[in-house]
Amino acid sequence: MYTAFIVGTAGSGKSFLTSILANRLKIFEIDVATMNLDPGVLRLPYAPDMDVREYIDINEIMTEYELGPNGGLVAAVDLITSQSAEILEEIKVRSPDILLIDTPGQMELFAFRPTGVIAANQFGGEKCVLVNLMDANLCRNPYGLINSIVLALSVQMRFFYPQLNLISKSDLIEESQLEDLQNWIEDSFAFEDAINATITGEKRELALRLHQTIDELQVFAETFPVSAKTNFNIDNLYGKLQVIWQGGEDFQVEDRVIR
Amino acid sequence: MYTAFIVGTAGSGKSFLTSILANRLKIFEIDVATMNLDPGVLRLPYAPDMDVREYIDINEIMTEYELGPNGGLVAAVDLITSQSAEILEEIKVRSPDILLIDTPGQMELFAFRPTGVIAANQFGGEKCVLVNLMDANLCRNPYGLINSIVLALSVQMRFFYPQLNLISKSDLIEESQLEDLQNWIEDSFAFEDAINATITGEKRELALRLHQTIDELQVFAETFPVSAKTNFNIDNLYGKLQVIWQGGEDFQVEDRVIR
Repeated sequence: MYTAFIVGTAGSGKSFLTSILANRLKIFEIDVATMNLDPGVLRLPYAPDMDVREYIDINEIMTEYELGPNGGLVAAVDLITSQSAEILEEIKVRSPDILLIDTPGQMELFAFRPTGVIAANQFGGEKCVLVNLMDANLCRNPYGLINSIVLALSVQMRFFYPQLNLISKSDLIEESQLEDLQNWIEDSFAFEDAINATITGEKRELALRLHQTIDELQVFAETFPVSAKTNFNIDNLYGKLQVIWQGGEDFQVEDRVIR
Repeated sequence: MYTAFIVGTAGSGKSFLTSILANRLKIFEIDVATMNLDPGVLRLPYAPDMDVREYIDINEIMTEYELGPNGGLVAAVDLITSQSAEILEEIKVRSPDILLIDTPGQMELFAFRPTGVIAANQFGGEKCVLVNLMDANLCRNPYGLINSIVLALSVQMRFFYPQLNLISKSDLIEESQLEDLQNWIEDSFAFEDAINATITGEKRELALRLHQTIDELQVFAETFPVSAKTNFNIDNLYGKLQVIWQGGEDFQVEDRVIR
């Protein structure tokens, strides 16, 4: 079983992408299953094959422990690993070739608390990929793109899976902005020019320094825009996932071995 | 009016630190006021002088828009700026010398959505400091400390205020771990040794590369552990805030000007 964890900040479009990607794989007659790992979500744009809400009732937790929505969410996500045995049994019974795991709405509850990494290690199959969504609205200028990538690096450090960084909801930005974005991702010098043209002073110094680090770490090799609404780059996403899942023992980026 | 925004991931101890710091300033007879900017919190360890919950009722929002705790929190935080005029009027009437602003429980709702930066610019006084809390539990080994600092950098890029990075809840880690931590922060070579001794392979390469960047950006000059429980370094925190608030036109770190 190959696994993809769909991770991203609140509102970055995780559930919608999970839904569109699963449908696309089904068209290719691939045995794909979806799992919702968010105990706090009310409505999903798809019917998950497995659902953590069957084990964890956030309203019950809020009532029982007298918690507000904040504390309730934290407690509910932290409780996921207490249900590991049952969830794992369900995965074993369903046993899909590919499992897409839609993670909690607020990224930090999954990425920056101990539960997320433990749950990922428990539920992930033989090869796991982390699909990290970065809202296109936050990436439309050079400074915002670097800022989002720095956050993506922090997520990558936590899970240390091969990671794809998707600029999600790319349909929300203008065609010319999208062209600029792709140019910055593909051409390091063009991006440096764009930084120099749009940012001044200390902010520029910080952006240039971080861009250099991002460049050296080759993060942009696995960064591209997608739209679950227009299907833009969804097949490309599947292609990239295939390469990682079936690309031999290790995930290779040029001469660098990740994992 | 000088302002400090207390920011950090869920459970990093923002509200407790706000409470302890306010009490400490009152002992020094400083005119300090507190503001709660989290519409989703149920109980606070202090009675805030100003409270966004007086303007935004998250339960009403959840009922009216048929949202779960996830969506409710996102909507409630996004609504803060719609109440700016009233909140600003309240700040003006109270007009404290120092305003401590306790931000929403889930950091990303404030730091990685548009509202946070807008609200910070509206409510902040003439000099703002961002106090970023990093849970000591996530910083007790070299890899975790770098990971937390990378996240801190992403926050710093968003607000671009002078920023103090506090390793919060330091009472939860052992004395020897705390000594190690302080050694790593103060001595770049000692930290590199610790990375080499505790991390291997690709993770080490990533950690060393990011440490180099962190070192060049002098992030550790403004990083230190605190405990709101034992009062460890709370006076030091106030001293650092004073230097930034009253330190002339700009905030200086050695030969580098921030802001």
